[in-house]
Parts: sequence; C-alpha cells; structure tokens
Amino acid sequence: MFLKIRPTPESIIKTEICVKFLSNQAASLKNVIEEEPSGPSMKTSIPGPNSLELMSKLKNVYNLGAIQYIVNYEKSIGNYIIDADDNVLLDTFTQISTLPIGYNHPALMESFKNQSNLRSMINRPALGVYPGVDWPKRMENILKQVSPKLSKITPMMCGACSNENAIKSAFMAYKARERGAREFTEDEKNSSIMNQRPGCPDLSILSFKGAFHGRTIATLSCTHSLYIHKMDIPSFQNWPIATYPLYKYPLEENERENKEIDKSCLEEVEYLIEKNKNICPVAGIIIEPIQSEGGDNHASPDFFRNLQAICKKHSVILIIDEVQTGCGPTGKFWCHEHFDLPHPPDIVTFSKKMQMAGFFHSEETMPEQPSRIFNTWMGDPGKTILLETILGVMKSENLLDQVQRSGKRLYSGLEKLQNEFPELLHSLRGRGTFIAVNAHGRPLRDTIINNLKKNGVQSGGCGQEAIRHRPALIFQERHVDIYLDILRKILKEISGRN
Amino acid sequence: MFLKIRPTPESIIKTEICVKFLSNQAASLKNVIEEEPSGPSMKTSIPGPNSLELMSKLKNVYNLGAIQYIVNYEKSIGNYIIDADDNVLLDTFTQISTLPIGYNHPALMESFKNQSNLRSMINRPALGVYPGVDWPKRMENILKQVSPKLSKITPMMCGACSNENAIKSAFMAYKARERGAREFTEDEKNSSIMNQRPGCPDLSILSFKGAFHGRTIATLSCTHSLYIHKMDIPSFQNWPIATYPLYKYPLEENERENKEIDKSCLEEVEYLIEKNKNICPVAGIIIEPIQSEGGDNHASPDFFRNLQAICKKHSVILIIDEVQTGCGPTGKFWCHEHFDLPHPPDIVTFSKKMQMAGFFHSEETMPEQPSRIFNTWMGDPGKTILLETILGVMKSENLLDQVQRSGKRLYSGLEKLQNEFPELLHSLRGRGTFIAVNAHGRPLRDTIINNLKKNGVQSGGCGQEAIRHRPALIFQERHVDIYLDILRKILKEISGRN
Repeated sequence: MFLKIRPTPESIIKTEICVKFLSNQAASLKNVIEEEPSGPSMKTSIPGPNSLELMSKLKNVYNLGAIQYIVNYEKSIGNYIIDADDNVLLDTFTQISTLPIGYNHPALMESFKNQSNLRSMINRPALGVYPGVDWPKRMENILKQVSPKLSKITPMMCGACSNENAIKSAFMAYKARERGAREFTEDEKNSSIMNQRPGCPDLSILSFKGAFHGRTIATLSCTHSLYIHKMDIPSFQNWPIATYPLYKYPLEENERENKEIDKSCLEEVEYLIEKNKNICPVAGIIIEPIQSEGGDNHASPDFFRNLQAICKKHSVILIIDEVQTGCGPTGKFWCHEHFDLPHPPDIVTFSKKMQMAGFFHSEETMPEQPSRIFNTWMGDPGKTILLETILGVMKSENLLDQVQRSGKRLYSGLEKLQNEFPELLHSLRGRGTFIAVNAHGRPLRDTIINNLKKNGVQSGGCGQEAIRHRPALIFQERHVDIYLDILRKILKEISGRN
Repeated sequence: MFLKIRPTPESIIKTEICVKFLSNQAASLKNVIEEEPSGPSMKTSIPGPNSLELMSKLKNVYNLGAIQYIVNYEKSIGNYIIDADDNVLLDTFTQISTLPIGYNHPALMESFKNQSNLRSMINRPALGVYPGVDWPKRMENILKQVSPKLSKITPMMCGACSNENAIKSAFMAYKARERGAREFTEDEKNSSIMNQRPGCPDLSILSFKGAFHGRTIATLSCTHSLYIHKMDIPSFQNWPIATYPLYKYPLEENERENKEIDKSCLEEVEYLIEKNKNICPVAGIIIEPIQSEGGDNHASPDFFRNLQAICKKHSVILIIDEVQTGCGPTGKFWCHEHFDLPHPPDIVTFSKKMQMAGFFHSEETMPEQPSRIFNTWMGDPGKTILLETILGVMKSENLLDQVQRSGKRLYSGLEKLQNEFPELLHSLRGRGTFIAVNAHGRPLRDTIINNLKKNGVQSGGCGQEAIRHRPALIFQERHVDIYLDILRKILKEISGRN
C-alpha cells in the first residue's frame, strides 16, 4: 500500500543520510560575496518614495511605529540590504542581529529544494508528541556540534519563550530539590489551579539592572533596559534586581576601580539572595554575558566565575541568556566560553542567529513528570534545518576565524577613530565583531546612526548612547574598511574639522 | 548595478502579482484524498519497534514525557498519519488541532517552489523594523479575507505569545484611557524600570475556571485546566477567576437549568470586576469560545452577548482566544461568529491551524507609542505564506461547507452511539467537526482512546473525561464512516455485548 502513496518512500536510514548530506553541502561562501555590490550606493533619502508608499498602505492595518524602511529581500545579497527604492546599504545590524550568513546565501536557498526537508517544514509536527523519524538525529547532531557542555536540549520558537521556559525549569528544579521524593500534595494540586500558594509558590528570579530578556510579561519582570518596554505592564514586584557591573574604560587604566565594581555587585547579589530567603526565595539568576539591548555592558570573566560560585553556594540555577551573543559574533560560538567557567551554566538559552530557539540544560533542570515544559509545537523543524545549514557554512568557511579577524580590524579602526575624535566617541569595548562604542550623549549617538544610514550604512544603537555593531559572520575585512571610511567621514563632518 | 546582482530582479508589482497568484493556485484537493490509503492498517503495537528505537536515541537529550510514537512525515498523506513502523492511522487529532489541510498537501509543497516565497522565508526579516516589499499586500490580503471585523493585525509566532501580547495591549489600552492626553510621568518611568508602581501598576486579567490560554508564565495565570501545567510556577495571585458555564446535556432537555447557570456565571463576572476595582482593576477578560483543553466546554451565544455587554459597561477589553477554534473547524471561520455579537470583540487571538499566529484587534488596542508591542521578528513570513496557501485551498475546495457536512454526519453518528451505549458515553456536544463526547470517567475515556489507537485511529482527550474530535478540514463523510465503525466496534467490546 505504501508504494501507492509515494513513488519513492524514503526509509529512516535514507533520512539520516539526508541530514548528514545537508550539513555537509554548505554551498560556497565566495558565491555570496562575489555577487555583492562593490559598496553602498544611495539613490534617494530614506525612507524613499517607494518605501513611503508601501508604508502608507500598511499604516491602516499595522503598527508602523518602529519601521525604518521597506526592504527588497529578493535583491538584498550577502552583507548588503537593498531597499524598495534600490538604495544599497552595508548592513552592520543584520535584522537585530539575527542573520548569521547574510542575505540570500545559496546554502539556505538549497535547504528546501531537498524534498525531505520541504516535507519536514510543511508537515509541521507537534514535536513533543509526534516527532518525525529525522528528529532524533537532528537533535543529536545539534547537541554534538554546539552544546555548551550541557546534555539536554529543549526546542522553542523565540528568545522570550526560551527564557520563559528556562525560568519555569528553574522554578521546577528548585521545588523538586525541596520536595525530594514526596508526591505533590492535594493542597498543592488544588491551590495551583487557582493561582494560589502552595501550588503556585512565592519564588523569584534575580535579574540585573540594564538587562533585556524579552517582552512577554514574566521576562519583562527580568528586563530593565528602557521604560517604554515595561510601562503599564503588571510585574512580579518581589523579584530582586541587582546591579550589573558598569566599568570605566579603557579597562587597562581602570583595573582597580573596576575590580571594586565587580566586588560590590557580587556582594549585592548575595545580599539579595539572603534577604529574599524567607519572603520570595531566589530560584534562579538570569544574566546576559554581554548586556546587549541595555547598552553593550560587559562584565569580567572573574565576575561570572564568582557569580557561578554564589549560585552553587546558595543552590540557585544559573541561566545564561545567549539569545543575542550566541552563534559566533564574539569569536567563540558562545560568549560565555570567554569566561572559563569551572562548570557549565545550568541553562543556556538561544534564538536569533540560530534561527531555531530553545535552551541547552542540565539533567537537573529537566522535570521528571511529562507535560510540564511543553507547548503545542515545541519548536519548528524548518528552523532546525536552517540552523543545520548555518552550522555547515560556519564550519566549511571557518567563520569563527573570520569573525576574529574582522573583529580585530574593526576594533583597532574604531580605536583610532576614538583617539582622533575623543569629543565624540568613548568607551570602546567588545569581543569578536560584537563591538560597541559610546557617543557623548544620546542625541549625538542618534545623529551618527542617522548619518550612517544616509551614507549607506545600516547600524544600530543600544542603551542610552552606544552604537552597537552586529554584522553577519561573513562580514570581511573589506567590509570593515568600507564601514570605517564612511564613519570617519561622518565624524569629521560632525566635529566640524575639514 | 542591480542587474548584476540578480539575473531577473523582480519589481514590487511583480511581487504583488506573485502574492495574488499564490492565493489562487491552490492545487486540487482531490489529489490528496486520492493518494490516501483506503483505511487504517496496523502492522505492530504502538509505539512499534522502530518508534521505540528512535525514542531511545532521543531519550538522553530530550524530554520524552509526552511522546506517543515517531512519525514518518514523508509517507503521511491527507487524513492519514503513518508512523515509523508503517502503521497507518486515521488522524482525528491532527497534531493537537494544527493541521488544516492534512499531510503533504500538494499546494503546501508548491508554496516554496516559488523562488520569491522561498527568499521571503530564508531571509527572515525583523518585520517590525524592515518588512519586505510583499508584506503590506500580504497583511492586507489576510485582513480582507478573514479578519473578524477588526481593522488591525499584529503578527506573532505562537498562541501563547499572541495571548501575552493581547493581554499587554489590554493593559496599555486601559491605562491610555485613564491617562488621557497626559504624558508618562517621571515617577512612572523610573518605577517601571524597577518593576514597581505606578509604572508597573496593579492591573488584572479576568479568566475562567477550566480555561487554557498558554504556558508562558502570565498566560499560565489565566490557565486553569490541569494542575500539572501550573505546579511550582509563581502566579499573579490577584487576577480574578470566574466560573465558566458547565451545562447539563442534552441542551434541549435542560434549557431552564442552563439559563440559570449562565445567569449565575455572569453575575460572578460582574461581582469580581466590582470587587477588584480598588485593589487590582480588571483591564481585560480573556475567554475561549469553546474551552478546548479544559474539556470542550461550551457557553451559549446568549452568555457571550451578555459578557460583551458587561465588558462595555465596565470598560473592560474583551479578548476572544480563538487559537484552537479559529480557522474553520466549527463550520464558520471563527467560532465566535456563531454568537451574533452586536460588536466585534476588541481582540481575537489566533495560531495553530493558521500556522501564522497573532491577533486581530481594534484601533483602541494599538498603542500610540512605537516599540511597546514589539519583538525581534514580529511573526514569520514563511508561516504567512503557508496561511495564504491554506486560505486558497479552503476557498477553492469549499472546506467550510465540507466541515459542516462532515460535522453533521459525525454528530448524528455519535448521537446514535451515545444512545446505544448510554453506560459509556454522555454529553455529546459540538459545532462543525469540533465535537466532543464524554466517557463516564477518566479511566474509561483513556481506555477508549487507547483502543482507538490500537485499531488505527489517532484521537485526543481533553479535560477529565472528554474525547475531542479535531480532524483536518478535509475530513470527509467517508472518513467519518470509517471512524464511527471502528469506534462502535470498540464500544461493543468494552460494553461486553456479544
């Protein structure tokens, strides 16, 4: 009967071969870079007339508030974004840091010409109940290739949902430890249904000032970057908020002071854990390895090692949010690899560049009972296939090395500009190409970003006055040079020097 | 220069034509049904040896708790799910009600052979900042085709995120009304960053006992179906929970009693709104048109009309959660169309069968300031393309009519079985093919579902004792007959009659 259903039904073994084939095929990077234009070129102001016309159509049905312009994704290529008016911009922001191998990479185009992959995508399963025959191999491959020394993976669909479920896992692990071998009580069961204690306990997640972990309501309780994100939304008022280290730059000139900052921040964390113990105990700490939306704030490896020690001491689950830092932009696959932690974190969340979202985690943070960390889809095979392709390209093209090389060139170029224009720029910092520099004040920062755009560079801001660099992993030295030339021109204009 | 970039760059106009072409192409349904096997056939027990082997591989890395078996999505076709052991099951549950036009529909396969669609999917944009040239037309088309008389659309990625953001929109609308023309105060700005009043106010969402609105932490505060979903997760303890009507069946014999139930539930809603006014005011009410996970609990059109009147009276935003009921299974596109509401609801959330998730909403529930209802991706063009294809197939194949016809046949068949086996089944209810019948007690319900599976029918339970029917919209009369024959055989066996 099956022969009737499909002309060539593929066996499980064939599917496995197919998965392997896919992660090996990784079409050549050279094709994308060769197809790129030689540099930015601007035909109109931005948004141009075609963008404006399309935006006016969207206006009546859609929240236009944050839209910058309309993009032609058929034409955009490699590191260049091309808009509806044929303006060509060098992209150092890559769709809020989500595009690892640039626009229209041939390897991504190929991913779904494979019939097996196409079927995995259109027959989207409820992966927690009925996964497909290819799924075990796919999960194994991803763990093997990129897990930060954690044995478990839980797929999700976006960064906020990954953090929501990481937080839930921390609560469950905390209570499981406390409960030991005993079953749920009737009182716990009945009270939980009605949102009450003891079933829904007073437990908290400790987060940091300046943090960004998402915009769902519980992740918003851990987010403290801009008031506009949080205004009017009820919050878990008992969840403690500690101070994230904000260093003085350059680091080599402020070592002693910055060490004091670390010390005082760590003391505050421990104080808050102690203080909350009898009111609303801290089950987990959530932290970004670099606070991204909050202004590209870096904390030292030493800070993170001590934070982990505090977590171990007080039995608190450590959640590292690598949604923006993960997948290579710092020159290592995970940013926290720079910290030489003595143990892996308990949970590492991911999304953005990975296309697939979710979290890697320890055995302890996987609840024993079924259906507790669960939802309808539990991820999306289509995004997992994209991730496999991306990992294949990263490997075959040595993109982590590329990031390190481009990062060095970008950093030293910015350092020169900071020295040349100290009245405009300060506090250069970063790892890989994940680099930021501050302008003196928000209005100046916004002017620089606007002028960059007028001159064909799409860049992004974060925090109050940072310019953040989030190019694709295929951003090469030549792109760095084009960018630095344009930036220098703009800084000269602003500074009024000829 | 652009001519160099792509051999045949397509203009905006061409993209528009392409969008129209896509929604018209809708490959013939007959192909899928013709390719189907003639009925279920079982080769092994479930999970069979191949499923078990694949599950054992997954076990070390993945939460296996809810997995039933492993599926071969290449072979599955139309209404039939085929597992890793070549067992063929008639699917009345369709991946937790998410598969509108069955497995491997040729129209879905075609969607991404179109290069323009493929590029829209792999170049996944941050849609809130840089939408593509095709996006305004796509949003307009979807609103025109299926909006429940609401003028705005906000795309998201899953049901929980849609509900999270609908709830946030209700809070913002409530405060905007209260605030009037005045700006945010400094106190509001500073307190919100630290999760405190007045920036993060004490406001609540009223939900109903038995409801299911998602598993992120705030939607869990509105979810009250099973304790296992909620256990150990902190909750908004001040959010009021009202009683959802639970009728006596058959309805025609219990009219007076059920009217009393409506009345008392509505009084409770109004009492809770009044009671919370000075503690934690109710900004919104969230409700399912049919409580799905909670046990397929129906409330009358009259109940919903009165609930809307209460919302209008107290200036409360009404959120109808059509995540499970939307996209046709009740015989109308939206279930709440059955209720003849005098006004559209303020917000209607959707996901599942729609593939694309999000919410339709009123002008009032779109915040004035940018970046308040926002996230990195704001949806996914790939899913929107799938939705367009699905809407095309629904139209060209008159699938709402098919649902009504199949639903009638299913309902009358189940009615006969309920009359034949009153000691096993009771409380038949439903609209379209969205039909449920209760077993007398949970163990009996679970036995029926397990025996159905052994006999080649994938079905699903909900609440304590309901068997819920969630077939695809292409479930025809012949599938109904196959299902009813198998169900009758099982009921006879259980009842012990000849």
